[in-house]
Amino acid sequence: MAKGIAIVSGGMDSVVLAHLLSRSHELSIVSFDYGQRHKKELQFAEQAAKDLEVPWTLVDMSFMANLLHGSALTSPEVDVPEGHYADDNMRITVVPNRNSIMLNIAAGIAVAEKASFIATAVHAGDHAVYPDCRPEFIGSLTQTLRIANEGFIDPEFYINTPFIALGKEDIANEGGYLHVDFTKTWSCYKGEEVHCGKCGTCVERKEAFDLAGIHDPTEYMS
Amino acid sequence: MAKGIAIVSGGMDSVVLAHLLSRSHELSIVSFDYGQRHKKELQFAEQAAKDLEVPWTLVDMSFMANLLHGSALTSPEVDVPEGHYADDNMRITVVPNRNSIMLNIAAGIAVAEKASFIATAVHAGDHAVYPDCRPEFIGSLTQTLRIANEGFIDPEFYINTPFIALGKEDIANEGGYLHVDFTKTWSCYKGEEVHCGKCGTCVERKEAFDLAGIHDPTEYMS
Repeated sequence: MAKGIAIVSGGMDSVVLAHLLSRSHELSIVSFDYGQRHKKELQFAEQAAKDLEVPWTLVDMSFMANLLHGSALTSPEVDVPEGHYADDNMRITVVPNRNSIMLNIAAGIAVAEKASFIATAVHAGDHAVYPDCRPEFIGSLTQTLRIANEGFIDPEFYINTPFIALGKEDIANEGGYLHVDFTKTWSCYKGEEVHCGKCGTCVERKEAFDLAGIHDPTEYMS
Repeated sequence: MAKGIAIVSGGMDSVVLAHLLSRSHELSIVSFDYGQRHKKELQFAEQAAKDLEVPWTLVDMSFMANLLHGSALTSPEVDVPEGHYADDNMRITVVPNRNSIMLNIAAGIAVAEKASFIATAVHAGDHAVYPDCRPEFIGSLTQTLRIANEGFIDPEFYINTPFIALGKEDIANEGGYLHVDFTKTWSCYKGEEVHCGKCGTCVERKEAFDLAGIHDPTEYMS
């Protein structure tokens, strides 16, 4: 079985990814604490690893909260915008170069563990807002990682992105097929006791279940 | 003046880099604590920032010491090899994907600070051992960073590598022209009170001064 490192935030996309890949790969899960407000999702990442009986590693990147300004996800003084995820005001949720940093750290772990891929749950809905979720970026990073680690890495090392051309509703559907318990996933940027139902990712989460036509078991504040 | 973020370890190469670039750029210095044994060099990085009157940021990447196995630079149970830096046994000093990770974090800071370049002191002597110090890697990473941060980054964002085709002796020479005080730089991997004089970087350091034909002010144990 091919060995790989999956980046799992504890959101629905990445938890479905872990369920999907663990069936036919030797998977390890890595999660990142980058000072996000919604730390709750990390507990769900850990839970997913337990449920799937695969190793889980938490990487402390809390330094990013201090270093990388301007994002509502890490700056307590910036309000989390409400509305649809793909709106212009969602650009404030961009942590500079975040995906690149996480993928590069995951790749470092992959090299150390002699794994042949890293995996990420980026999907088509991310593309408009986050340039580092686009296929062009994944292709470019793959080449850079092979060059960066030549002689230490599988020459056919790749980034596994099974959802890159899918909408979030397709991922919800896929999770349905895989019998993923969605109450064990977290989306809300606000990180309260239950999902707020209003922030960008909550709106997007509701919409995904709605479009997929499957039951949304999430408890929302409104 | 172009604004940039220079990665400075406190070694002679990167301290000379900071002296060179701060003359004609608006420079900030970033250093990484990745659990290296030779933490002493970080004090010299901070000192360089003070001397040049530029901002200094220390990024705590100590998680790497636990995550990325197999390198003598971070694993206390692995002996630091002695001998010339370019020898085969120096491959054990490779921390997987380390340069990529540091350059990506520096790029994240650059995006947040609206800087138009990041700078690194990679030089020709590194190429044989560290694939992520080669020109091919720098070119590939430049493209990946532009793609990853499209819309948030200077479209002509670049990686400033003035020493990439130079030998370490050329950097020693350059430091001589710039009147760099080399006693305020640190090379030794062992991190004792004075330079050991025997490990790979000490051997290389001695050789650089020797080839450059300039006085080596370093105190060596042997």
